[in-house]
Amino acid sequence: MTRPTFLLAPDSFKESMTAKEACVAMEAGLRKAFPDARFIHVPMADGGEGTVQSLVDASGGQLVAKEVTGPLGQRVLARYGIMGDGVTAAIEMASASGIQLVPKEQRNPLVTTTYGTGELIRECLDQGIRKIIIGIGGSATNDGGAGMAEALGVRFLDADGAELPRGGGSLGRLARVDASGLDPRLAEVEMIVACDVTNPLCGPNGASHVFGPQKGATPEMALALDASLAHYASILAEQLGKQVRDFPGAGAAGGLGAGLLVFTQATLQRGIDIVIDSTGLRAKLAEADYCFTGEGGMDFQTKFGKTPFGVARAAKEAGKPVIALAGYIGDGAEALYEEGIDAIFGIVPGAAELERLLADGPKNVERTCESIGRLLKLK
Amino acid sequence: MTRPTFLLAPDSFKESMTAKEACVAMEAGLRKAFPDARFIHVPMADGGEGTVQSLVDASGGQLVAKEVTGPLGQRVLARYGIMGDGVTAAIEMASASGIQLVPKEQRNPLVTTTYGTGELIRECLDQGIRKIIIGIGGSATNDGGAGMAEALGVRFLDADGAELPRGGGSLGRLARVDASGLDPRLAEVEMIVACDVTNPLCGPNGASHVFGPQKGATPEMALALDASLAHYASILAEQLGKQVRDFPGAGAAGGLGAGLLVFTQATLQRGIDIVIDSTGLRAKLAEADYCFTGEGGMDFQTKFGKTPFGVARAAKEAGKPVIALAGYIGDGAEALYEEGIDAIFGIVPGAAELERLLADGPKNVERTCESIGRLLKLK
Repeated sequence: MTRPTFLLAPDSFKESMTAKEACVAMEAGLRKAFPDARFIHVPMADGGEGTVQSLVDASGGQLVAKEVTGPLGQRVLARYGIMGDGVTAAIEMASASGIQLVPKEQRNPLVTTTYGTGELIRECLDQGIRKIIIGIGGSATNDGGAGMAEALGVRFLDADGAELPRGGGSLGRLARVDASGLDPRLAEVEMIVACDVTNPLCGPNGASHVFGPQKGATPEMALALDASLAHYASILAEQLGKQVRDFPGAGAAGGLGAGLLVFTQATLQRGIDIVIDSTGLRAKLAEADYCFTGEGGMDFQTKFGKTPFGVARAAKEAGKPVIALAGYIGDGAEALYEEGIDAIFGIVPGAAELERLLADGPKNVERTCESIGRLLKLK
Repeated sequence: MTRPTFLLAPDSFKESMTAKEACVAMEAGLRKAFPDARFIHVPMADGGEGTVQSLVDASGGQLVAKEVTGPLGQRVLARYGIMGDGVTAAIEMASASGIQLVPKEQRNPLVTTTYGTGELIRECLDQGIRKIIIGIGGSATNDGGAGMAEALGVRFLDADGAELPRGGGSLGRLARVDASGLDPRLAEVEMIVACDVTNPLCGPNGASHVFGPQKGATPEMALALDASLAHYASILAEQLGKQVRDFPGAGAAGGLGAGLLVFTQATLQRGIDIVIDSTGLRAKLAEADYCFTGEGGMDFQTKFGKTPFGVARAAKEAGKPVIALAGYIGDGAEALYEEGIDAIFGIVPGAAELERLLADGPKNVERTCESIGRLLKLK
């Protein structure tokens, strides 16, 4: 095989390369061994950080910046992506409402809001978007998506008919949900939620107890937030007829999962599956002789829905060999041999400072791919 | 090919694994992909550190300890190897007369002696050895091999007929060499000197100027030593009829090259060629489907006679693919693709402390070889 087709479907190598840059480096290395090969670049992601960038890169779309309300009410410049088709958008909720936007000493999930995420969704509606892919990892919030809904026209009122202050802490006083002002365009827009967790909204496995602490919740705060969300869920059920309290994934992103289920045409899917679908990976795999994937780190967690795992599964369905590269190969990576990955190679050339390794990522991917290519050529 | 034959011919991975241990780790990894494969272990070396160990391991021989005179006259426990055939020995001169035996503040090539190396040779004669392979890297000495010769019965006398003190500094007063007492068994013993340098004994490219400084010589000492060795060479030529002054390699190991040429049946060869010959590598290559090699570090210097280079050259003569592993891949390693190495893989799994990487060497070789094996199996 002197003119094989290589499908290159890596995730980003965090702090080193975007997925697209990894594709370029892979091609550069493989091309040295196979100058006449064909290369198909499919920059991947798993619904987490980097997903918007990869979907934009994979579709030839563009990134758009939009000023919205941050988790603490401050103004933040969020980014979202419009795919090459012009009617699909990709949002990472963390861009508007993420934990990285809140300094450690100000972390307080009683008051943080998803309002900015709602503004991003509204912006998509204004742009004529028909389908929104939304990644909901990395949130600073515990408001059940109420802030998001408010930005889209829903009113959350107390017993006196006054609007509640934003943040999960006030939802315990929720008396009435007025959804009459909900943006009607939402009914026409497909909302694909990238969600890899199955936590319910409330209870010991719910948003507040499981994810609250990493957002700054003390045990007392977590208890209060859990009670608030339980009350919120009962009001939504009563007044809107939507039962989401125990829906798997409703507890994702401080309950934003629940909010999206109630107020939008949402379906929750594994992030990697969404990316595989929206990049058309399967059709491209059919044309490939070899599939390359990879990620900054690969270990026992990779098989819980990370990109190399998802790509390998899809490639195996197509009967294609899968070769993975990683900047760090951790414990349990060899379990991936059971999951369809044929070989895993580290890209690190030797002992070196992390800074240096991150900077040299593309060079190291290229060198490693050259050697892999030369090995494949031996055949 | 479900039952390929793998020839495993790595050097040691310095401070991490002996060559033999590297063979074991390579097999462990490859066997996961090819449980029924055949493995031929040929622990290699290039004449430098680790050569005795590798030759002993490759031949099923044994290491022997012997107390001898150190470079400063102290007692040191040196080791040499007796090959599996019982009549070939391997010596590293550094074991008796090496720079690592002299604390930095005591380094003085005017007085350091190769006497202990001569004692090791005498010990070999006592053991009935018929062939000695001697690696001469890492010396602390600049005595032209006079100390070595003295241990074997030669007397170096001043104008008054008194024996000279040991060390290169006194050779300027040499008036007469009495070789009448030279051990007669030496005439029957083949002396194979592993020598990768071509420096003459004297002059600007000679032992004293080129290697003296790293043994502690000041510029003045280097000048004095160079003059001493020049005088020594002229006496050897005059009184013994041996012209070695300008012989390529005579200047190796502070002139031990010259001493061996004069007083023993020595031939100088590249270290890697000696090891290739004495391990029977070529015959074993004929049986192999794949040849694996490797070393702790590989870079642009590897092509100047290091093990992976030599193994690759031999493998290419036999038309076999060569796969190399390295703990560190440095600048210029890709030049080895021109020299017969088909692919080079780093074994490091990610950013980590050097200590940890050295400790994990066998594990990392095994993991990398498993992936390489899985890739080869794709064929």
